[in-house]
Amino acid sequence: MKVIMQPVGFVRTEARQIPKHFSISQVEGELVIDEAYRDGLEGISPGDRIVVLFWFHKSEKFSPAYLKQYPRGDRQRKKRGVFNLCSPIRPNAIGLSIVHVLEKKGTTLRVRGIDMLDGTPILDLKPCTEIEGDGKP
Amino acid sequence: MKVIMQPVGFVRTEARQIPKHFSISQVEGELVIDEAYRDGLEGISPGDRIVVLFWFHKSEKFSPAYLKQYPRGDRQRKKRGVFNLCSPIRPNAIGLSIVHVLEKKGTTLRVRGIDMLDGTPILDLKPCTEIEGDGKP
Repeated sequence: MKVIMQPVGFVRTEARQIPKHFSISQVEGELVIDEAYRDGLEGISPGDRIVVLFWFHKSEKFSPAYLKQYPRGDRQRKKRGVFNLCSPIRPNAIGLSIVHVLEKKGTTLRVRGIDMLDGTPILDLKPCTEIEGDGKP
Repeated sequence: MKVIMQPVGFVRTEARQIPKHFSISQVEGELVIDEAYRDGLEGISPGDRIVVLFWFHKSEKFSPAYLKQYPRGDRQRKKRGVFNLCSPIRPNAIGLSIVHVLEKKGTTLRVRGIDMLDGTPILDLKPCTEIEGDGKP
């Protein structure tokens, strides 16, 4: 079984030093969403935190040698299973970041908290209630 | 540009009433991961919360008519953009749930918090530090 996806946009950032994790990132950049999805962004506003799912397009292809990896490449630490790590080298190379929306211009969202490379393909955006729940049945 | 993925396993549950969101789900079930990824599960233990990325395999195919949708199908509410909703009908039909690991048997994880249908293809598992951050640089 194969699952085929098409990116809905891409990340744009001028930063060349990208933190390893969004939770420690102050880097700003843009989520440039395709014009065709304009209505899909309705209700997203500055101040929101959103989940970005993206494709680690520059990462090495996964192979069984990467089933266990050193956390953040630190060889002082014990290797862990890839499903217990945030490594970009994974069976399906989906990345997940949570970013803060600073500004919305057409279908481009200016955000803070970038830990993706310039040009990274975006697969999906979700509201943070997806993670936190809104308590509603 | 196309992104092609292969599921790493599937969800198994006997529950026929599936809550709409993991945050309100007490439903138990199993994440049955392919034997080939056994080492990738190393370090995941009962008590952990993990992120599951999956494919909404039974959802309608996305079309522009779904760019705006009623939240949880509730027509009393105002339509919102699909990127501001958890709807399973989305441009790339990736779902995200956070579940509690109850037990690990080989490559099968028994979990609580299921909001996926029986048979749902699993694309990735990630540790919850992916969402919460571990504060480490």
